Amino acid sequence: MLRSLLQRGAVTTNHKNCWIVIRIDGKGFHKFCDVHNFLKPNDERGLNLMNLAAVHVLQEFNEIVLAYGQSDEYSFIFRRDTSVYNRRRDKLISYVGSLFTSAYIFNWRTIFQDTLELKYPPVFDSRAVLYPTDQNLRDYMSWRQADVHINNLYNTSFWNLVASGLTNAEAEERLRGTLSSDKNEILFKEFNINYNNVPVMFRKGTTLMRKKVKLTNDKKLSLIVPIFEDMIDDAFWTRHPEILSGKSDSTDCYELGDNKEHVLIRYQIEKHNKRRPGAEVSL
Amino acid sequence: MLRSLLQRGAVTTNHKNCWIVIRIDGKGFHKFCDVHNFLKPNDERGLNLMNLAAVHVLQEFNEIVLAYGQSDEYSFIFRRDTSVYNRRRDKLISYVGSLFTSAYIFNWRTIFQDTLELKYPPVFDSRAVLYPTDQNLRDYMSWRQADVHINNLYNTSFWNLVASGLTNAEAEERLRGTLSSDKNEILFKEFNINYNNVPVMFRKGTTLMRKKVKLTNDKKLSLIVPIFEDMIDDAFWTRHPEILSGKSDSTDCYELGDNKEHVLIRYQIEKHNKRRPGAEVSL
Amino acid sequence: MLRSLLQRGAVTTNHKNCWIVIRIDGKGFHKFCDVHNFLKPNDERGLNLMNLAAVHVLQEFNEIVLAYGQSDEYSFIFRRDTSVYNRRRDKLISYVGSLFTSAYIFNWRTIFQDTLELKYPPVFDSRAVLYPTDQNLRDYMSWRQADVHINNLYNTSFWNLVASGLTNAEAEERLRGTLSSDKNEILFKEFNINYNNVPVMFRKGTTLMRKKVKLTNDKKLSLIVPIFEDMIDDAFWTRHPEILSGKSDSTDCYELGDNKEHVLIRYQIEKHNKRRPGAEVSL
Amino acid sequence: MLRSLLQRGAVTTNHKNCWIVIRIDGKGFHKFCDVHNFLKPNDERGLNLMNLAAVHVLQEFNEIVLAYGQSDEYSFIFRRDTSVYNRRRDKLISYVGSLFTSAYIFNWRTIFQDTLELKYPPVFDSRAVLYPTDQNLRDYMSWRQADVHINNLYNTSFWNLVASGLTNAEAEERLRGTLSSDKNEILFKEFNINYNNVPVMFRKGTTLMRKKVKLTNDKKLSLIVPIFEDMIDDAFWTRHPEILSGKSDSTDCYELGDNKEHVLIRYQIEKHNKRRPGAEVSL
Repeated sequence: MLRSLLQRGAVTTNHKNCWIVIRIDGKGFHKFCDVHNFLKPNDERGLNLMNLAAVHVLQEFNEIVLAYGQSDEYSFIFRRDTSVYNRRRDKLISYVGSLFTSAYIFNWRTIFQDTLELKYPPVFDSRAVLYPTDQNLRDYMSWRQADVHINNLYNTSFWNLVASGLTNAEAEERLRGTLSSDKNEILFKEFNINYNNVPVMFRKGTTLMRKKVKLTNDKKLSLIVPIFEDMIDDAFWTRHPEILSGKSDSTDCYELGDNKEHVLIRYQIEKHNKRRPGAEVSL
Repeated sequence: MLRSLLQRGAVTTNHKNCWIVIRIDGKGFHKFCDVHNFLKPNDERGLNLMNLAAVHVLQEFNEIVLAYGQSDEYSFIFRRDTSVYNRRRDKLISYVGSLFTSAYIFNWRTIFQDTLELKYPPVFDSRAVLYPTDQNLRDYMSWRQADVHINNLYNTSFWNLVASGLTNAEAEERLRGTLSSDKNEILFKEFNINYNNVPVMFRKGTTLMRKKVKLTNDKKLSLIVPIFEDMIDDAFWTRHPEILSGKSDSTDCYELGDNKEHVLIRYQIEKHNKRRPGAEVSL
Repeated sequence: MLRSLLQRGAVTTNHKNCWIVIRIDGKGFHKFCDVHNFLKPNDERGLNLMNLAAVHVLQEFNEIVLAYGQSDEYSFIFRRDTSVYNRRRDKLISYVGSLFTSAYIFNWRTIFQDTLELKYPPVFDSRAVLYPTDQNLRDYMSWRQADVHINNLYNTSFWNLVASGLTNAEAEERLRGTLSSDKNEILFKEFNINYNNVPVMFRKGTTLMRKKVKLTNDKKLSLIVPIFEDMIDDAFWTRHPEILSGKSDSTDCYELGDNKEHVLIRYQIEKHNKRRPGAEVSL
Repeated sequence: MLRSLLQRGAVTTNHKNCWIVIRIDGKGFHKFCDVHNFLKPNDERGLNLMNLAAVHVLQEFNEIVLAYGQSDEYSFIFRRDTSVYNRRRDKLISYVGSLFTSAYIFNWRTIFQDTLELKYPPVFDSRAVLYPTDQNLRDYMSWRQADVHINNLYNTSFWNLVASGLTNAEAEERLRGTLSSDKNEILFKEFNINYNNVPVMFRKGTTLMRKKVKLTNDKKLSLIVPIFEDMIDDAFWTRHPEILSGKSDSTDCYELGDNKEHVLIRYQIEKHNKRRPGAEVSL
């Protein structure tokens, strides 16, 4: 048993017991968003299509304990001790990347119905990153979430300035060297926007986790739920101890609250019901 | 200059000057073919959808000199000296895999029109393989082409036996231990099939290369052409010297022959013409 | 800063923040010990030559927090956050291996003086192993220390049986299938040896750490000290908290006790004094 | 058989069928040469100690077809198809490095007898480099041999200038921006040195190969012979076809010429004779 701890000579990609993060990134999505007229600075449908594709990935891989998406990227975190595909780099990178791509296109109509046609095939690259300690993983998650904050505050300010008549160059010039507080003030004073009231998905990104939810028939159903919380504080990790411990309290139910009608939840309930005619459930 | 030859300490994936082969493989395509009622032992439309997806990949990567597809797999061969994405493993594997997947779904309707609905998102994994010598590369291509021969002769015999009334188990039993010559005889004597007359794409797989073809206006157009030839003999490599030499004779034109109406050719001509209204071309 | 956490595409050997263990192993030391008539089952001088070579390695690399030797192997544990040679595998493996080899031969006369001639050049291979968590590292150390226990108890029994007149084959036969308790009893009943009184270096191996020791002039000196303790229990890690925390309490002094005259200590004091004529120190 | 060509997922260090070059490099040899008063710009005994250490490596590894040394570095070229240690990077790097180090110290007295004492343990690092094509290998060898030419011409000029009374800084200044022809002229005009008459080992480095030589008893003996030839020209590779072909003509004998008395040859003959008392041979 101990012997298996020792890695034999060959350089393996995925050192046993490291957290494995597979991150996919949209390729040329600036152009892709333009061609498909996605709203700026955020297109809710576009983001939810990303989220829906990610749900497919979590449904396929039980050993993903957490996923996090923002803009045109998504990170999938595999359990420390996962042995899926023997932790082979090629397999994990290509399978997650292909499945995400496939689900993104397959669900295009789920999100856009007939209002928007897919003009050309979108592409995502993917990469593997390994983190030895829990703190390394938390630093990574914080880094990605800090990224969405910085970008979104900038973009919200930028596109409001453009909407108010400035050219792109003028808006860029206006924001050069500004601090977060400056941008908050521009938004508030000039556009009457309290940044804290911007939809939380735009400000925080989307975290996906597997949770048990209570049905109207008092039974429980395991769903992949969208969570919009700050992951930089300790509180998040205390509230969801199963991420780092690898053990979930099987009796607790997660309260969906306002998210009962979220497109990701509706999608999963409908799919569940379609497979069990006569035994439909509801939240 | 010489200094760059020396690889510094870190183990890099893609040793400079090795042939890089990226091979994609359908995931669970046995089930995928069943669910979508693909014809057995070969579904021409299904194979051409694979080919069409591969054309997208070659259009994206100029440095692919050759691609070869059979069944649910496709191999893409990058020039020895390619520096695309700095030969980074993650990038090449994930980008080729995602683009192939994306193009496969995107072109579903190009091939099947409204006759067949895509029931769930197909997935492909991908891997990188490196070959130092030209002979290694040729051995690899021979291996994949020998594979299609063995499988297709077996499958053609098997499904004809099943169509004639045998159960799967009986057909399997009948073929156990048979040689190629035995199967050829079964096909000929019992089903009046001369295996050599089976469509060449089924017997040899599809090779894709970039070639100049002559248009009716006497100009030339660079197209990705399907070739159905034996790659095991030297003759193939002599006929297409640009693969190993990396240099194409820019004056020679390739004769499409019967393939002028091939779906891959028509697709490229139509796409070319759509982008140049008023300057359409034809073969 | 966070950005540096993200490992870019290329597969690096030494994932940031993993413990790096470089282990060297004698090549063909069975024969080497025979040719040089090393005592069986343990040659104290031979083991201390290993220890002395290891001291050289620790003197060269400040970032080694712990080393452990037994038989013809030595493990060097680099701090989690070491950036020595950019954690490059080739560099660490070859440099530690070459320095150990070099110091082993160079100190041959320090240990054996003129009593034993080196007959041919000894060789050690080396390898790198990475451990993400503290527990992984402790498991590794326990594994190596359990190994010395099992081997030494067996060898002590075996060579006493041989010394008592049995052939090698008879001794082997006699020990086949015996438990630890059986071997302890053989030693006690037949040879009047209480295994617990066998020198602790033979039973536990040698752990090397950098410690401050008090000199007779009341000043402190940093020395690499040999420690013969059980590393499987928690107590060891509590007694030496600097290993896992990376921080040593700079005020505490380590008590050498009986080891004041240990060859490793004498060697370091003499070397220290030779470089500072007129300012010699003593313990 | 073909299947084994395909490298499975994991990133292996040593791609099958690439040339493997293990290069060792002296660590801090500038200081090492100073401390031991090695002659400048070249110390024949120091270089031959390097050569002798390399002979040990070739005697251990049959699959090394060529070795090349200059200054404080040595390159060992393993056959394309070598399977020694399964081509494992850690093993090859550490074993070659340790053996070279060990043999260097062990043979110190063979070369220096009692005229020079080894003051501290020398260290060599080692690294692996892979080359896919024969041309890549030849480029590498040319690169290393061009390196010795450039360095030696500079150093010969520099140390002659210093010997003539210039300070190091003045000699450096004098040579700044000079071409090869300028340095040749300085040597000839000012020091009456025809650079082409400088010992060939200093100008070309030492190539080691396994060759059959004829003994006085008309029998043949396989020896590792030093060769001082230009490897940049094609002629070298034509004269020694076994390097690239992997096949040696077993009937041909190599003419040692002036090198019959070379220290490397004498060393091997003496070692051979010592093992076969009563059956000594001579050249």
